[in-house]
Amino acid sequence: MGQHSGHEVEEELADAAGEESNGYGSKETPGSLMEAYMQAEYIVSGHGSRKIKVLQEAFQHMDGEMDSDHYGNGETIEQFQRQMAEVLGKESAIFFPSGTMSQQIALRIYCDRKGLKRVAYHPLCHIEIHEENTLRELHQIEAVLLGEKDRLIRLEDVKAIEGDIACLLLELPQREIGGQLPSYEELEAISAYCREQGIKLHLDGARLFEITPYYQKTAAEICSLFDSVYVSFYKGIGGIAGAVLAGDADMMQESRVWKRRFGGDLIGLYPYILSSQYYFDQRKDKMGVYYEHAKQLAAMLNQCHAVRTLPEVPVSNMFHVHIALAQAEAEPIFSKMTQQFGIGLTSYLNESNETGHCSFELSLGDRYETVPQDQLQAALEWLDEQFRVLVPKS
Amino acid sequence: MGQHSGHEVEEELADAAGEESNGYGSKETPGSLMEAYMQAEYIVSGHGSRKIKVLQEAFQHMDGEMDSDHYGNGETIEQFQRQMAEVLGKESAIFFPSGTMSQQIALRIYCDRKGLKRVAYHPLCHIEIHEENTLRELHQIEAVLLGEKDRLIRLEDVKAIEGDIACLLLELPQREIGGQLPSYEELEAISAYCREQGIKLHLDGARLFEITPYYQKTAAEICSLFDSVYVSFYKGIGGIAGAVLAGDADMMQESRVWKRRFGGDLIGLYPYILSSQYYFDQRKDKMGVYYEHAKQLAAMLNQCHAVRTLPEVPVSNMFHVHIALAQAEAEPIFSKMTQQFGIGLTSYLNESNETGHCSFELSLGDRYETVPQDQLQAALEWLDEQFRVLVPKS
Repeated sequence: MGQHSGHEVEEELADAAGEESNGYGSKETPGSLMEAYMQAEYIVSGHGSRKIKVLQEAFQHMDGEMDSDHYGNGETIEQFQRQMAEVLGKESAIFFPSGTMSQQIALRIYCDRKGLKRVAYHPLCHIEIHEENTLRELHQIEAVLLGEKDRLIRLEDVKAIEGDIACLLLELPQREIGGQLPSYEELEAISAYCREQGIKLHLDGARLFEITPYYQKTAAEICSLFDSVYVSFYKGIGGIAGAVLAGDADMMQESRVWKRRFGGDLIGLYPYILSSQYYFDQRKDKMGVYYEHAKQLAAMLNQCHAVRTLPEVPVSNMFHVHIALAQAEAEPIFSKMTQQFGIGLTSYLNESNETGHCSFELSLGDRYETVPQDQLQAALEWLDEQFRVLVPKS
Repeated sequence: MGQHSGHEVEEELADAAGEESNGYGSKETPGSLMEAYMQAEYIVSGHGSRKIKVLQEAFQHMDGEMDSDHYGNGETIEQFQRQMAEVLGKESAIFFPSGTMSQQIALRIYCDRKGLKRVAYHPLCHIEIHEENTLRELHQIEAVLLGEKDRLIRLEDVKAIEGDIACLLLELPQREIGGQLPSYEELEAISAYCREQGIKLHLDGARLFEITPYYQKTAAEICSLFDSVYVSFYKGIGGIAGAVLAGDADMMQESRVWKRRFGGDLIGLYPYILSSQYYFDQRKDKMGVYYEHAKQLAAMLNQCHAVRTLPEVPVSNMFHVHIALAQAEAEPIFSKMTQQFGIGLTSYLNESNETGHCSFELSLGDRYETVPQDQLQAALEWLDEQFRVLVPKS
């Protein structure tokens, strides 16, 4: 399914980037960088590796007599759903095995209600590039791709849509372009316009908690601009898997029927629910720290010759790192840096078909504060020197 | 979602019956029988309660450094899929979060391949009565209901289908009629006929391992009659949730794309995979014992006045118990028996709209051998006496 061929590559991408690689222009990474990364003393991004101790830790001190949830019912699921409805400022929230399942269900419900199988979203949003064309194959829903691949959706893009749509989906932050965010004012303007026009507004908030420090808003305040929202529990939260969809009570009731149809209404989702709860409690208040770390690290990287981050100043815990070199040129340098300084900055490099330059993604979490700053600084200074030799000044 | 209104009722049904209640003609059970059952010293059916210690036990001694599966890849998932492909005698097997997801995907693939959106199955099969009309709502697949609600599908029913179908689904055992099974010869005849006619044959083998002792065949031998099969890991196996779909390599490859579309291709399914593996290893060789216990208990129940089991002689670990009394009449008696003898035989009674009589389901597992036989015998003798007073001889 992944665009990288070796599963180890994907495995480590999960560590580095929190989820699947975008795969755009990526080539298979030769062993050396991955191997060096796997052996590095310190890893810069993420919360930790995705080993089964993540589950064991979460369940270690729980009362074994606690009841399983049961086909969507029972305190184990209901209390977390109530908590999430409150956190997100919505009437109701439903726990799903995945965001992929929950978001297409939200869009389907909006389309059915309006009797119009047409929605709009960014050309690089998750539903368009990672979900095997499910909107068309399973729902016969047409998607209008709004704006351009290399920038955010703007109010003018929404106003320029020809014909009617049932729903606009916004992904905040826009992961595939480094996790960029519109200004809060533009967001409010888009929301107001959609309400005026009777267009439902859905938030792909996979990384919602991660953007609250930049906007200086609570999750509920941001969500108040949207009719519905999905949040993930294995990205910034670092759980095992699982998602919540939140919105009006009516719509959530309907989404439960669809969850059953999709085979997502499991007899027990508690392995995901209880671990989501556990890691949410641990990390919900650390998003500001991750964000500050991201800004700090991006500033250090931007001082390296031939390196620029996107966005230049991060607006969440994530950003992309672009290097004005081909993958084949940059990779031995990153490998050597990793080996020499014990700092695992990335396990892979993607090469753009358009520019011929390479890039990687960083999402900062708990691991960043374990990295000795002097060692990191020395590694980046060494990187700077190597790139100065290879890349002429522009 | 459940037809019972209180979640506690459903919760206990899971213990008693292994999964959701069929709900046909069921009414909400008043507190007394459920309460008595919850406090009973011994529970006759199932492996144990669905508490989170089921997960804790499975993971207790596992190596925390084991890697998570990753979007369907990695040894953690691949080794179990290889093992299951071998057990089921198929080229390939894919682990899914649920049977609901996996089965509709199998049917969809067959329909797409044949360019014919028409399948056939029993009027009371899981996909027809528990899945919110998903074949029609998500796939626009028409279902031909074969045979009658109160009996198994026969070869003559298949031969009598008007027009062509892409796939025939058989559920073995047929749960909603007490877990009945056709003779193996009839099964072979249906299989041969379907191959002749170019009709794909899919097995709803949610309880496949449970029927191997009756047929005196391995799972692979039974599956050889079918093009594809789904098996569950939380019924007879007693895991937490999860399912495997097995078939040709081509079809399984295609099913992975659909699994992604459905949102079932989670970043980590290991909480279900590893617990399925754990409980499969524990219980795979005990199916013969459960089956013998079912026959023994059914014989004892059939000696009670006004009680008959369906089937009269069980063909797996499960059967239904029919009582020639209305729910309101039988319930106080079952409550009293449970309290007086400490034997939890059932937590609920369903009433048939047609006969006005009530029934419940039993699925025997690990708990049965903990029940003292003399205490059980005494309870059933007492039950017999009560029913003799209430129900005139026919």
